[in-house]
Amino acid sequence: MIDYKLGDGSVTTPKGFRASGISCGIKENGKDLALIVSDISTNVAAMYTTNAIPAAPVLISREKTKSGKAQALVINSGNANACTGEQGLNDAREMVSLVSQNTGISENDVLVASTGIIGRPLPMDKLRTGIPKAVQALSTKGGVDAAEAIRTTDTRAKHFSIAFELDGKKCSIGAMAKGSGMINPKMATTINVLTTDVDISQKLLQQALRESVDISLNALTVDGSMSTNDCIFLFANGAAGNEKITSDDDSFQIFLDALKAICLRVAEELARDGEGATKLVLVTVEGAKSKKEAQHAAKEIANAALVKTAIYGHDPNWGRVVAAIGGSGVAVDPAAFSIRFAGILVAENGCAADYDEAAMKKALDKEEIAVQVSLGVGKYSASVFTCDLTHEYVTINAEYTT
Amino acid sequence: MIDYKLGDGSVTTPKGFRASGISCGIKENGKDLALIVSDISTNVAAMYTTNAIPAAPVLISREKTKSGKAQALVINSGNANACTGEQGLNDAREMVSLVSQNTGISENDVLVASTGIIGRPLPMDKLRTGIPKAVQALSTKGGVDAAEAIRTTDTRAKHFSIAFELDGKKCSIGAMAKGSGMINPKMATTINVLTTDVDISQKLLQQALRESVDISLNALTVDGSMSTNDCIFLFANGAAGNEKITSDDDSFQIFLDALKAICLRVAEELARDGEGATKLVLVTVEGAKSKKEAQHAAKEIANAALVKTAIYGHDPNWGRVVAAIGGSGVAVDPAAFSIRFAGILVAENGCAADYDEAAMKKALDKEEIAVQVSLGVGKYSASVFTCDLTHEYVTINAEYTT
Repeated sequence: MIDYKLGDGSVTTPKGFRASGISCGIKENGKDLALIVSDISTNVAAMYTTNAIPAAPVLISREKTKSGKAQALVINSGNANACTGEQGLNDAREMVSLVSQNTGISENDVLVASTGIIGRPLPMDKLRTGIPKAVQALSTKGGVDAAEAIRTTDTRAKHFSIAFELDGKKCSIGAMAKGSGMINPKMATTINVLTTDVDISQKLLQQALRESVDISLNALTVDGSMSTNDCIFLFANGAAGNEKITSDDDSFQIFLDALKAICLRVAEELARDGEGATKLVLVTVEGAKSKKEAQHAAKEIANAALVKTAIYGHDPNWGRVVAAIGGSGVAVDPAAFSIRFAGILVAENGCAADYDEAAMKKALDKEEIAVQVSLGVGKYSASVFTCDLTHEYVTINAEYTT
Repeated sequence: MIDYKLGDGSVTTPKGFRASGISCGIKENGKDLALIVSDISTNVAAMYTTNAIPAAPVLISREKTKSGKAQALVINSGNANACTGEQGLNDAREMVSLVSQNTGISENDVLVASTGIIGRPLPMDKLRTGIPKAVQALSTKGGVDAAEAIRTTDTRAKHFSIAFELDGKKCSIGAMAKGSGMINPKMATTINVLTTDVDISQKLLQQALRESVDISLNALTVDGSMSTNDCIFLFANGAAGNEKITSDDDSFQIFLDALKAICLRVAEELARDGEGATKLVLVTVEGAKSKKEAQHAAKEIANAALVKTAIYGHDPNWGRVVAAIGGSGVAVDPAAFSIRFAGILVAENGCAADYDEAAMKKALDKEEIAVQVSLGVGKYSASVFTCDLTHEYVTINAEYTT
């Protein structure tokens, strides 16, 4: 096992990347425009929302990343540029063009993403003055500012880094992500940006991204809603100087393990900072008939309002887990399933298990709660990150206009 | 069109039925034991939860109603007798036996249902003293008491009646139902009891029930959770003296229309009294590629926490409807869909529509809110009843142990 160093770096931790995050006035308060630029053209891997009504920037970037190459990414928060028709596509293209004009990077190599309110035209006047400022502000220490600038209802900026070695060269991956509502990714995720200085072929980069997202960002739900704007980008510029990874060898495995570790950290933090969340919840389903059924059952439990409110109420209400499992359509043995809350067995062989109430009370006071279910019909398992459902969630979403 | 009289009668409104609702001590406060008895053996139609972990009384009653005949139904609230293993089956059988002993009705003709906390053994001592008392209390005016006795988190008892004529004879259907959480029926519903004095073959009775439930109780969701205890029973004793309905003729259509009307009323009231609800929400999806896709999209919108909190917040946040539709997997034309909130067009041809904010504010103050979506790809439509998601929902479910 490699000794990875997971830290609180950012997308500018890997060599050869600069970033900035500024306020251009789209949001009433705070930073709302992020820019990430590589010194040289990079291989890029990307995944996008499978929502049938994708936002304009998703359509534009999806087309551009087919080349497997990119050098810059501009992201605004406060406005999703979704359901904005032809004007929205033109606006996304103009954002690309503004970055290109101010950096000298080819339009083909500039990607774009947006997050925020759906259905309103982008305030292009603000972006026309903002993008040149964001270019001016680019710095090798700008990753944290960029993470700050992509927040919507997130209570804190999310940026991470992981360090490792390949061929004796120091390598790293940096990440930034935004939550914290409309999160139920499927073959994609919320807006996430990963950078690395590792030298790796685009094909293996995409494969590593897919495998990592599958166990992390695709195993995350806050509210069961899939955004129109989900996307994840992974830029690899090769600046670390390692021998280029071109096959599924030891170096690829080291890189893949590091990428999985940082993606898991991102997913965990997005769940922990889910809208109104007081607890991080890890739902694990074992003993399923297939991997797909394990994943589906875990998602159904994680999306069940009754389970999420019970955890908020410090209540090991396993009857609600039973309702979620039984209603999910997956195979389960009614006389063999078992359920654990916070590590404590509450149901066994389909019936209530005796447990120490004092120990349970103490366990449910913690900020991380595991819900473990064994279906009793097979050998497959899956885990999903989520959070509790709180009064604050209702307050945020009854008051915030997406 | 027949002139139906929909009223606030109960399961004892049709001739030949008696009922009672008493307190036997399963719940801390209030009535918790209901009994419904027909003077003579009746045809019975029933539908049950498709939850893979059904409660003991569901297993017992499902077996009994295969005969198509029944004469009595006993229901307790406060304890679901679910996940209780062999003991739970024995307890459900004993409830049947107690009713049989005290009424003289054959055990074969006595059905049983339970609702309440999952995973705890039934307090049989309380039922052993309670059931004889419930038999004593049977009366032709006991329908309202029975409706009272099946409540869990319902804020009010739900009982209805509908009157119509067949062959010049006065006929009626009576209903009682309980909500108001763990409601997302599929081929079944929450606990509902319908009685009628119409004379009708068991086969047509079952057909009428299935058709009526499909458009009403199966088109209802409060929280997306399917109970382990859902069931609906329809007793027909023939006491009205109409010519027995044995084919799909005019009389059958009159009966079916009346049954659909009362089932729609039940579904509407269950949604209106959903846990913590301040608003009844009717989601309608039109222009879908198939009936199934219309139903699925409507359910996805109705179950979206973000949509439900927006309605609670009086916010016509159609971006969240877009996320729900786009993420649902149904066919939709991103450039042709439209959305209305409370009758007011908010999105058209996939983009924002201008609307009068004052008129919208007024419309969203109402207690019944329609959300209408046209997907723009076909001719099929479907409607689903739901409610908003409120602070009170979180309070109820963070504090109540199911």
